[in-house]
Amino acid sequence: MGDLIGAVVETELYYIKRGEFERARRLNAPQAAISGLFADMARLNALYMIAKAGSGHIGSSFSALDILTHLYLSELNRERGDLFFSSKGHDAPAFYAVLMALGVIAEEKIHLLRRLEGLPGHPDISIPGIVANTGSLGMGISKAKGMVLANRLAGRDARLFVMTGDGELQEGQIWEALLSAANSRMGELVVIVDHNKFQSDFSVVRTSNLGDLAAKFAAFGWHVSRVDGHDHAALAITFEALRGVTDQPKVVIADTVKGNGVSFMAGTSIDSDVEMFRFHSGAPKAAEYSRAVEEISDRIEAKLRALDASPIAVQRVERSLVAQTERETKRLFPAYEAALLALAAQRSDVVALDADLALDMALLKFREQFPERFVECGIAEQDMVSQAGGMALQGLTPIVHSFSCFLSTRPNEQIYANASERTRIVYVGGLSGVVPAGPGHSHQSVREISAIGGIPGLAVVEPCCPEEVEVLLRWCVGEHNGPSFLRLVSVPWISSAALPKGYKARKGCGIRFADGDDGVMISSGLIGVAEALKAAEHLAADGIRFAVVGLPWLNYVDRDWLATLADGASVLVTIDNHYVAGGQGQMLLATLATLGLKRPPRCLALGLEDIPPSGQNAEVLMRLGLDGASIAARIGRFRCAR
Amino acid sequence: MGDLIGAVVETELYYIKRGEFERARRLNAPQAAISGLFADMARLNALYMIAKAGSGHIGSSFSALDILTHLYLSELNRERGDLFFSSKGHDAPAFYAVLMALGVIAEEKIHLLRRLEGLPGHPDISIPGIVANTGSLGMGISKAKGMVLANRLAGRDARLFVMTGDGELQEGQIWEALLSAANSRMGELVVIVDHNKFQSDFSVVRTSNLGDLAAKFAAFGWHVSRVDGHDHAALAITFEALRGVTDQPKVVIADTVKGNGVSFMAGTSIDSDVEMFRFHSGAPKAAEYSRAVEEISDRIEAKLRALDASPIAVQRVERSLVAQTERETKRLFPAYEAALLALAAQRSDVVALDADLALDMALLKFREQFPERFVECGIAEQDMVSQAGGMALQGLTPIVHSFSCFLSTRPNEQIYANASERTRIVYVGGLSGVVPAGPGHSHQSVREISAIGGIPGLAVVEPCCPEEVEVLLRWCVGEHNGPSFLRLVSVPWISSAALPKGYKARKGCGIRFADGDDGVMISSGLIGVAEALKAAEHLAADGIRFAVVGLPWLNYVDRDWLATLADGASVLVTIDNHYVAGGQGQMLLATLATLGLKRPPRCLALGLEDIPPSGQNAEVLMRLGLDGASIAARIGRFRCAR
Repeated sequence: MGDLIGAVVETELYYIKRGEFERARRLNAPQAAISGLFADMARLNALYMIAKAGSGHIGSSFSALDILTHLYLSELNRERGDLFFSSKGHDAPAFYAVLMALGVIAEEKIHLLRRLEGLPGHPDISIPGIVANTGSLGMGISKAKGMVLANRLAGRDARLFVMTGDGELQEGQIWEALLSAANSRMGELVVIVDHNKFQSDFSVVRTSNLGDLAAKFAAFGWHVSRVDGHDHAALAITFEALRGVTDQPKVVIADTVKGNGVSFMAGTSIDSDVEMFRFHSGAPKAAEYSRAVEEISDRIEAKLRALDASPIAVQRVERSLVAQTERETKRLFPAYEAALLALAAQRSDVVALDADLALDMALLKFREQFPERFVECGIAEQDMVSQAGGMALQGLTPIVHSFSCFLSTRPNEQIYANASERTRIVYVGGLSGVVPAGPGHSHQSVREISAIGGIPGLAVVEPCCPEEVEVLLRWCVGEHNGPSFLRLVSVPWISSAALPKGYKARKGCGIRFADGDDGVMISSGLIGVAEALKAAEHLAADGIRFAVVGLPWLNYVDRDWLATLADGASVLVTIDNHYVAGGQGQMLLATLATLGLKRPPRCLALGLEDIPPSGQNAEVLMRLGLDGASIAARIGRFRCAR
Repeated sequence: MGDLIGAVVETELYYIKRGEFERARRLNAPQAAISGLFADMARLNALYMIAKAGSGHIGSSFSALDILTHLYLSELNRERGDLFFSSKGHDAPAFYAVLMALGVIAEEKIHLLRRLEGLPGHPDISIPGIVANTGSLGMGISKAKGMVLANRLAGRDARLFVMTGDGELQEGQIWEALLSAANSRMGELVVIVDHNKFQSDFSVVRTSNLGDLAAKFAAFGWHVSRVDGHDHAALAITFEALRGVTDQPKVVIADTVKGNGVSFMAGTSIDSDVEMFRFHSGAPKAAEYSRAVEEISDRIEAKLRALDASPIAVQRVERSLVAQTERETKRLFPAYEAALLALAAQRSDVVALDADLALDMALLKFREQFPERFVECGIAEQDMVSQAGGMALQGLTPIVHSFSCFLSTRPNEQIYANASERTRIVYVGGLSGVVPAGPGHSHQSVREISAIGGIPGLAVVEPCCPEEVEVLLRWCVGEHNGPSFLRLVSVPWISSAALPKGYKARKGCGIRFADGDDGVMISSGLIGVAEALKAAEHLAADGIRFAVVGLPWLNYVDRDWLATLADGASVLVTIDNHYVAGGQGQMLLATLATLGLKRPPRCLALGLEDIPPSGQNAEVLMRLGLDGASIAARIGRFRCAR
């Protein structure tokens, strides 16, 4: 009997069909009442999508929903070419809910948030009604400015509405964007700040206080309004007034409540001075979901009663949820947390910097135990990396944290500038690789090796199991003279990889996890090595025996080690949880070509070839041909294609 | 008799030795008078260095010099650990002049600006007195904040002084940095804005008006002072007053004159509404140099007379300058200018975006002929790239310009986000490759292929001669569905490469420029192909015949084309004007490894291995082993090392 890896929980999920939204819009009632009702109905659907997907941003979706509703029901003139998009992109479920209610997005997509052929975790223009890809913060106002200029050139009299978060305003690009918008007198541009007072982890005030936001926008030449972002009558008055302002870009600072609409999810329900906001991302627990549905439904019913309208039909979906347990899966971040704490206890020069991802990057205990050595930088990766540069010049050993997708790209030039000083800085990137695939391409980090691997002296390393995390962190801090990038997978994964006893890091040399005479697979990281090992099992079932080697060095290989490995091998397969272009495999194969082997192996390079889709982890990996079974099949075809 | 490639001009250059600065400092006079004298003496030396080097930033050096002098003579407590550095870094000659006058930098280095083993074009910590590498804008305040935090951890009571430009304030990182400095009450930090009113090309007001700068800093929680940056008495009063402000970071907006100290170089001498500032970078002409020396010397003499002091001894250096002509050299930018103008005349969807480099990127005529399609973004590359994204989504074809070192790295994530929308955007990077080597590593762009070449769908291309510029630009705009990066060398170069008649771009396929049976060199670009051809001549002199192939596709190769080229070749050499890691050669060799050739060639990958030094073009190329003669020698050694 196989191991039980989860308990089955029966649960019910609820959503509202499009027709009911149309009925709500036709009710004989003031627009503000209709909008308030519509927004709550959309809340129920956004919550449905997130619960069904198993992940998504409730807090930001709920804080934005009344504004989104107001814009689509009362403000946007879509015939004229008015456009809206959300720069933060976290609020995608809310946005999708509104677009579905209006018939822009097909209704059946409601069941497919974060699924292949469904609705990506962050907005993508492949979805009707979505006009810009977002998800990485800070770019939206700039994009909208480009659209304004295009409209002007085409003689189109259309307006652009962009929603930003408040934490998002810590990104420098925002302030770049504000300056020229004012100089160009972009009266066509309206920015709405969803000022819900919380960022990813903690309150904005606690993370990186924005201070007097209105004064900042005003100093940058913008027209500033302020409004209760959940008061539909006030929203109408505010936006109405803005139509007369045509010679200045306009910002509406909308005071909102993160998680608004469900009492226990609301940011106002916690002590923001000390508590973390729990509903930023992820999915609610079953009991939380039920209570939230009840609250929203009760309010919808009450609103309908007040308008003398008949109840809304709510669809019920039965669902068997497999409550995942973590048995058998391996996780890198608990190991990272422990390794970092042990290191910091030993070395007083170790300082941790974070860009509003302390929870995800497992830094909460560090912050607690070494508060004077923890620097919370807010969502300002460039500033964070250059600060680390200054610290390193003064003798500290900074360890810089963010998701890999951001850390390897947003402060790319800053990392290079630091490297030119030849100081020791460790960059630690989480959420590395193509999974989790739910959030979509803005968060799927499959380009780090190329983006920063070419920087002289910078070592890019990736552990394939929890035990290797500490080995590599110690190497980066203790043995390597220069910068390094520790690439960490964030999802738990089943892997049979285990380090040999007494394993020590040897730069450029890998670990043999499985033997075989028919060829060798080289990969790296928790997922790459795990899937290679699974592929080897599949091949073995067909009598084909492949060796599996894990190489934690992503941008460097020891030539002798590679020569020994490749000499005599008939087939060599590289497997990248990364684009093939610029990946570890390309580095390996290029090195191989210079070895001058008498009988070089036939080579196959596997990895990503195109921007990855959003979806569940398993289905995306299979679509990309990078799960164990697919890898085995691809190797099988390659062997036959002689 | 060989061609005359330049006329010899006899000229005299002047500088002042360190001893005279020491004498000036001991004069019995008010400090303000001594500082004013010292600054003018340093001006003469900064001008000497720039004239001797043949390039450098006069305007910014002269505007900063009085402030630098004040800080070093009267403000910095270097024993306590006070540190100063310039974030803009353009003012390096002024900075070096002051540090030499104080004995921090060895006096003889005055003759070695922008030379190997000399003083790099932008500051580098290998030079005594330089505490941070700068040159790429916007990072300095962040670095200083890191140093402040390090000081706090170490219990050091020291202050940090950072100078920025005014155009530099358009960089978003500046505003990221300001926020948390205020939240952390960094009274230790003083930022001085060298507010000289001009950027690289035009006035700040005209380029991207900063508006009410004091209001902006104040809104970000900073203490703001304003002072005449050339008035030493006023500087003393201003900085004295700041010592009492300890709970806020402080900014001194220093109103300065770009090129101050020489009447005809001063920004105030031109009509800033229309005229370009001529002395931002480069070297003065001989007559301009003489007039400038006369003005500065006269003023020094007058100041000494007023103080009843004896004249300063000025050293005279005779120098034979070879006035370079452009005969025989090839230049890509005139060809680019013509190609872009022709394209824009045909296609109304073509829009050019610039980040304050209109002169260097040959955009002045475009701006004149198509003003409504020219978007000057200021020094805000992230904003520029995302604006281009918005334009492309609205149907335009944006062509985005900056130096490659900045364009491929600062907006790296923005380029990726745009690519995820699969729109057509052309990024054009100038100053590509390791030369000009004078400005130093912040400006030597040798990492573009790796930094962005891994982005799916993005084609990185580089022309090897003027005629190929239009071919590739047309391909990017007319044939390629997606983003592209056109990598352009900025320096004129002697090259014998000429396109075959009727040449058309074929994606992934190269051009054979020379035949030979002993091996093949593959390279790209104006410099790579030129030096490969020179190498082939050197080898031919030894009876070794190498083919030379130019491959304008930097991140893609046609497999069949490569197989045909490599099959049967005994030696294949790739030559990158780029780091080997992540360069064209690595892509070629990795592809080669997967071709399964029966007799693969022996392979050698040439290119940069480490962060390049600053120096003259020829000496740096030779140091790196990438000039024709060195390449030939390396190939010769490789052939023998069987």
